[in-house]
Amino acid sequence: MKNQRISLAHGDGGELAHNLIQDVFVQAFGHNDQARFDSAIIDAPSARLAVTTDSFVVKPIFFPGGNIGKIAIAGTVNDLAVSGAVPMYLTAAFIIEEGFKINDLKEIVRTMASEAEKANVRVIAGDTKVVERGSIDGLYINTTGVGFVDPDRTVNPEHIETGDSIIISGTIGDHGVAILGARGELGIKSDVNSDCAALNGLIDSILKNVDGVRIMRDPTRGGLATTLVEIAEDFQVTMEIVEEQIPIQKQVQGACDILGYDPLYLANEGKVIIIVKKENEAKVLELLKQHELGRDARVIGHITGKGKGHLHLKTGLGSTRRLNRLSGMMLPRIC
Amino acid sequence: MKNQRISLAHGDGGELAHNLIQDVFVQAFGHNDQARFDSAIIDAPSARLAVTTDSFVVKPIFFPGGNIGKIAIAGTVNDLAVSGAVPMYLTAAFIIEEGFKINDLKEIVRTMASEAEKANVRVIAGDTKVVERGSIDGLYINTTGVGFVDPDRTVNPEHIETGDSIIISGTIGDHGVAILGARGELGIKSDVNSDCAALNGLIDSILKNVDGVRIMRDPTRGGLATTLVEIAEDFQVTMEIVEEQIPIQKQVQGACDILGYDPLYLANEGKVIIIVKKENEAKVLELLKQHELGRDARVIGHITGKGKGHLHLKTGLGSTRRLNRLSGMMLPRIC
Repeated sequence: MKNQRISLAHGDGGELAHNLIQDVFVQAFGHNDQARFDSAIIDAPSARLAVTTDSFVVKPIFFPGGNIGKIAIAGTVNDLAVSGAVPMYLTAAFIIEEGFKINDLKEIVRTMASEAEKANVRVIAGDTKVVERGSIDGLYINTTGVGFVDPDRTVNPEHIETGDSIIISGTIGDHGVAILGARGELGIKSDVNSDCAALNGLIDSILKNVDGVRIMRDPTRGGLATTLVEIAEDFQVTMEIVEEQIPIQKQVQGACDILGYDPLYLANEGKVIIIVKKENEAKVLELLKQHELGRDARVIGHITGKGKGHLHLKTGLGSTRRLNRLSGMMLPRIC
Repeated sequence: MKNQRISLAHGDGGELAHNLIQDVFVQAFGHNDQARFDSAIIDAPSARLAVTTDSFVVKPIFFPGGNIGKIAIAGTVNDLAVSGAVPMYLTAAFIIEEGFKINDLKEIVRTMASEAEKANVRVIAGDTKVVERGSIDGLYINTTGVGFVDPDRTVNPEHIETGDSIIISGTIGDHGVAILGARGELGIKSDVNSDCAALNGLIDSILKNVDGVRIMRDPTRGGLATTLVEIAEDFQVTMEIVEEQIPIQKQVQGACDILGYDPLYLANEGKVIIIVKKENEAKVLELLKQHELGRDARVIGHITGKGKGHLHLKTGLGSTRRLNRLSGMMLPRIC
């Protein structure tokens, strides 16, 4: 099976397609109670459900710290987790280019099964389509997630107020730089890995033990700055973050300096922004730092007012400037 | 806005992306209670849920009788409906090629909103990604559906038995021929439209009024024959269908004769196979024919035995031959 590749016949619903599903997908995800991979019956985990969907088109497909499958699981799990829901079920749909190596597909699917297990979610249904060479760039994946909404465990953005603390769970820009490195665009040797990770365990430890969490978001496309601007606009608050408080790996800052990127606008795939009432700032920080995914957590700023929808950066020089959402293209196909 | 096209900036999470979502997606699907398009909180419709996912890569994107958006809604609605569930919520994720015309995107999304309304389902969350020119062929869509499982309204494949009737809701091969025509491969003028349609209303009328329905499936990729072979193998039954009973439009048969395709293996996007206990054959047929989507319904065969997993075709000449699942490629990117 060493050099076997996906052919159009693998996607047309016939014999080869049937075997592919058995050998690659059912093998990894397991479906003892399903005759087929494409649909599932599940128990509703709660009266209210959170539902989210995402497509993954990252390039390259394999990068330091992960692959498209890992992001496909972590990304959707995180979208559910930051809304306060407990992620439970995922579907996974694959669109594959004719000629794609079957062994690469198996590796990606195995990664997904492993990430799903770590995150304690089940992949319950899926789909595969194959398109002709040139009609797609290798492989794209969609994952759609369903999560359990616990009415006793909520994030309350409507309570956001002046003085609230803005916390980041760790270093920013890692994923963006890992991708640039994998694309050969850095021009220097780098061992920055993507931070790609499912954060529901980390987030769980916060929501179980701390109240007054206003909002959480994962700063993916557009980076920390764009995500904070969106929050500021969505909830009409003014925020200030302090440049020197923002955790950035030396290598990431260095790569950005060389290439002219701003780490504030680079994607992160394993970080969460938490806005919480000030009194609980220390507790949140302590809980994050106890967790392997939150060791570099920092308070980076505060909500400074209501009504305007602005984000300000207090620079290392002491001046303050306004940050806008990313406008114009930065890095395509980052996730 | 006449000739405006999608650019990479529309997919990077910044300003343009934000506006695109508002102008195209929120405009069509409507999200009064959501700040963003990407996730949703819903009431679980029942204790048990059906979940299914599908990617749509049909080529060409616009074809007689529909477009990729129409199939994206109908296909996932039908996957839920044939399992006995009541389709309720869909997510819709778009992967778009740089350069795609925004007006085409708007038309597709409007079609989806219209189909969703007809099928009485809500599109509750979505995603958009943009990839560079050449990295995808125009537009691919994923829809994932959640449906309500009514324990009093079930399909019971475990009750399947010798003598059960096999019914098709209408003519076969229409979608396949419409696609071939749209690709310019017919060589003759054809006015065959795709049969693409959401069938949950039709299926509902059956399940509400008839018991003894063993199984339902929509004969999409691989066509009627492949789908029946899958059923035969999944449930270890032998079936016989009668060539002269199978409803096929003259134009479809003609196109197939010219091109060397077999309508038994062409995709259908608005038909359902129903296997039901023999006593209720007439009732099912009557209910189908009362519905605009079931006017050409026919009994095409019966379950003839248990244990083998074979499909037989009794030909117009009176001979009987075995039909296998589609093996090897027939038509790529049919849905």
